[in-house]
Amino acid sequence: MRLYTYFRSSAAYRVRIALNLKGIAYDAVPVHLARAGGEQHLPDYRAVNPAGLVPALEADGRVLTQSMAIIEYLDETHPQPALLPGSPADRARLRAIAQAIACDIHPINNLRVLQYLQRELGADEGQKNAWYRHWVMTGLEAVEAMLADDPRTGAFCHGDTPTLADCCLVPQVFNARRFDCSLESCPTVARIAGRCEALEAFRKAAPAGQPDAE
Amino acid sequence: MRLYTYFRSSAAYRVRIALNLKGIAYDAVPVHLARAGGEQHLPDYRAVNPAGLVPALEADGRVLTQSMAIIEYLDETHPQPALLPGSPADRARLRAIAQAIACDIHPINNLRVLQYLQRELGADEGQKNAWYRHWVMTGLEAVEAMLADDPRTGAFCHGDTPTLADCCLVPQVFNARRFDCSLESCPTVARIAGRCEALEAFRKAAPAGQPDAE
Repeated sequence: MRLYTYFRSSAAYRVRIALNLKGIAYDAVPVHLARAGGEQHLPDYRAVNPAGLVPALEADGRVLTQSMAIIEYLDETHPQPALLPGSPADRARLRAIAQAIACDIHPINNLRVLQYLQRELGADEGQKNAWYRHWVMTGLEAVEAMLADDPRTGAFCHGDTPTLADCCLVPQVFNARRFDCSLESCPTVARIAGRCEALEAFRKAAPAGQPDAE
Repeated sequence: MRLYTYFRSSAAYRVRIALNLKGIAYDAVPVHLARAGGEQHLPDYRAVNPAGLVPALEADGRVLTQSMAIIEYLDETHPQPALLPGSPADRARLRAIAQAIACDIHPINNLRVLQYLQRELGADEGQKNAWYRHWVMTGLEAVEAMLADDPRTGAFCHGDTPTLADCCLVPQVFNARRFDCSLESCPTVARIAGRCEALEAFRKAAPAGQPDAE
């Protein structure tokens, strides 16, 4: 498999974690989101993914896009270890946690949105950072409410093995720290992220360890 | 089942379509997102969904949240008609189309984000509408690129029956029209939305037909 990735993209980071948890070897093809006006907009990459977003995964002769759709595909084609285990209700819960991050936090704080704020609305650095922190904390506090006091929460977001939810949680916590957000109001989130980061599959997927890391 | 819904919420609209396609009867519990500072923030609703977002579905003794997770649950528990049909690669494609809408367009244009733009960044009405149209059109053009010239696109987004992707597409097209976006650059999107809207399951789910419509 071939993963089009950018070391700091948290959507790509999710897929790297899932590939590592599954033990699937892959070739990393870096796409630099900030260089040359964004390499994701160049014709070569648009031919891979017309949406001009990373990640994209070439697998089984096809290009797959959207990180959660990619992880569901990996889970269907490489069932062990299961990243969406349990009953339909279990999967609904862990998908909801994943989507509370992948839909309600990440897109609002994506690089292209921050660039629009600055370019079109004249937001200064302080306003940009306040925006970022506001949506990270609103979102992570919602995730904390889903995790805390729910008996289905275990060592990880759902039970005692990593799932799709953890693949989404850890990159978001990484971003929160990068923008100096305190996780004091989210102790369950912080505990689970710490537990994940002790695993090699998560460590190897982290931005600093990528071939294109700066 | 009991659906916590708001007539104009496009995430709730997705779930209404899916319930109708499955032929599942449900009680609608309106949660008014603009009244009383947002009824979704009131303690009664926070007890249902601590994240304070609609929709939420009470089903089989549990509260489910996040529209795509809810639709996947409905598909697992009520398999016919299938909203995620085909092979893993088919499901990856239709999930990616759904997520290109549910992740890359909708959250950025959500009411709470527009309110932040006005309240914290002083965006005026024109700037707010320009923001809205920019992200709708950027997103729908990416979806158009996924649909056009792909032989897997049929009468609907993926093949000749409605799927999760169509449940996401139609509410987004509804929003695009509400903000006077031209769909000229997205002919496949417009064609498929029109085909969906001819079906009763989609028509009955539309905002104007809801008990809380204004």
